[in-house]
Amino acid sequence: MAPTARSKSRSAIHEFDLIRTLQQRHSRHDPSVIRGIGDDAAIVTSGAGKWSLLTTDLLAEGIHFDLRTATMADIGFRAAVANLSDIAAMGGTPQYLLVSLAIPRTGANNQVHQLYRGMMAACRPHRVTLIGGDTSASANGWFINITLVGMVPPRKALLRSGARTGDLLYVTGTIGDALAGLMLLNEPPSKKRPSHTAAISTRHRQFLVGRHLHPTARLAEGQWLSAHRFATSAIDLSDGLSGDLRHICEESHVGVELDLSALPLSPACRAYAAFRKLDPAALALTGGEDYELLFTLPPRRKAEVERAAKLHRFRITCIGAIRPARQGIQAIGQDGTTHPLPNSSYEHFK
Amino acid sequence: MAPTARSKSRSAIHEFDLIRTLQQRHSRHDPSVIRGIGDDAAIVTSGAGKWSLLTTDLLAEGIHFDLRTATMADIGFRAAVANLSDIAAMGGTPQYLLVSLAIPRTGANNQVHQLYRGMMAACRPHRVTLIGGDTSASANGWFINITLVGMVPPRKALLRSGARTGDLLYVTGTIGDALAGLMLLNEPPSKKRPSHTAAISTRHRQFLVGRHLHPTARLAEGQWLSAHRFATSAIDLSDGLSGDLRHICEESHVGVELDLSALPLSPACRAYAAFRKLDPAALALTGGEDYELLFTLPPRRKAEVERAAKLHRFRITCIGAIRPARQGIQAIGQDGTTHPLPNSSYEHFK
Repeated sequence: MAPTARSKSRSAIHEFDLIRTLQQRHSRHDPSVIRGIGDDAAIVTSGAGKWSLLTTDLLAEGIHFDLRTATMADIGFRAAVANLSDIAAMGGTPQYLLVSLAIPRTGANNQVHQLYRGMMAACRPHRVTLIGGDTSASANGWFINITLVGMVPPRKALLRSGARTGDLLYVTGTIGDALAGLMLLNEPPSKKRPSHTAAISTRHRQFLVGRHLHPTARLAEGQWLSAHRFATSAIDLSDGLSGDLRHICEESHVGVELDLSALPLSPACRAYAAFRKLDPAALALTGGEDYELLFTLPPRRKAEVERAAKLHRFRITCIGAIRPARQGIQAIGQDGTTHPLPNSSYEHFK
Repeated sequence: MAPTARSKSRSAIHEFDLIRTLQQRHSRHDPSVIRGIGDDAAIVTSGAGKWSLLTTDLLAEGIHFDLRTATMADIGFRAAVANLSDIAAMGGTPQYLLVSLAIPRTGANNQVHQLYRGMMAACRPHRVTLIGGDTSASANGWFINITLVGMVPPRKALLRSGARTGDLLYVTGTIGDALAGLMLLNEPPSKKRPSHTAAISTRHRQFLVGRHLHPTARLAEGQWLSAHRFATSAIDLSDGLSGDLRHICEESHVGVELDLSALPLSPACRAYAAFRKLDPAALALTGGEDYELLFTLPPRRKAEVERAAKLHRFRITCIGAIRPARQGIQAIGQDGTTHPLPNSSYEHFK
């Protein structure tokens, strides 16, 4: 992604402020740059009739992944999806991949190959070509940086900044699953008390862990939203609904009314939440890395879009509406009361 | 760069083998990819009349830089030059920058800003626009990944693979300076014995340290070599002459005869070598990160190119000739005898 506002983990540095300052200090007028810092991917014109999309993502061991709960192939797969999803959120088509790896001294050749196998498994269905990268030693832990290049027809890119008051807010698929899957993976196996995870059916467990380890980038959905000019804005859910909704509101200068009772929750996510006595809506709001698309569309297109989605077997759910900026971000609870939505992006690991 | 063959530091994994295996396993036929893995930058066609160049470089604290001997601004500057130099080696023009940062918990806001200040100081003269990136926490140390996008007119890219038997081998500028500068920075300050560095004049010391901390990407030289189709092959000196020469030979399937007495050495490098009782040619052969260009040209163009270089005030030096592959890589010593050139790339830090 463009160094956007993703608080991947807590640090002394506030990423939003950092990005804003960088934008101010280092921006220069460049007519070939359609969109620089601040969206899921940067957009540059590249010759007649083509816009290029560029996104980059850095993953650090101990921050974004844990070798105790994921294989190198899983990590590679997820790293690739994180980038594919940024291209999906722009309505684009991914094309080229560059991979930088910092390998700890304990790193083995077959781990590197597994990592690539995972990345390419995620990329192959989309005909992405590995064109370059860099390899280096690391004094401490694995670091993986992926840069993905894509394209989108001129003026068809989905931006975070296009939402207008009155637009309806939609999300693809189901949300909260990836966080539930991560929590399942991180639960310590306990012998003294009955295992928590035993109460979740194997099918549900596999579904949730699968959603965490092998998420899907919604490329077909993004391209469909862009090609028909359905969406006025879009973002992918990588920080969690609460955080990513905030990015749409900031970039579009709007507020939002979110209907918590409408959130699309999978039966597995509901089962996990019930067992752990959690609010499944909280999983959906704070859970990062579902990689679903959050988008807005004008109400007059509602029927047309929902019909077309059904035809393509795209699951989309209306979860709210865009409101004037002064109303902020409000959530309508199950009980019908309205509250400001807490800012509760999921922060990786710690 | 494309995951080329750069042994940035020793590890259990042999980078050359890794890259070769990756090429074999994950390559797919993509007519839009002119050059994938294996050169200074990847080349893709991007619409009519334009080739895009893509290069990426990962730098790790404790491997590629040391905060005890360089400021964050120095580190940013060098990181940017490493990428600019890859574009220079292709004869291209740099355009867009994406920066990923992993920031340790001890990292401070002003360090990040210094790093960007250094990067942009290197990029600004070349009108490179910062368009994106990513920011993350790091469990251990700083990691910086830069992706640089550039362009080159179609069929004008300088490749590593174009050298032909009989071509002359040239290098820009002087070589060995950056390693001498790094060695000066790493010398422990000693109170007991007269300081080693005292014997080097301040002017020489400043020159060498400057060449290490603030190298120059030879963009004008690369574009000039490409525009006039002077060079048959080119690479930038980032691993050191010995290693980078090997890349030209491998990719072009040729051998080389290197004239050690012809190596362009600065007075400062000679002075440092004399004082430390080192062979200055060894500094030039093994010293990475001079970021000069190594290139080949057909002998019939020698006079024309040397005249044109003088006109542009480009320093270029003929240091050898391309030979058939079976002759391998031979060095003619100061005494006129010929030996196989040892493979002695400089390996960062340890």
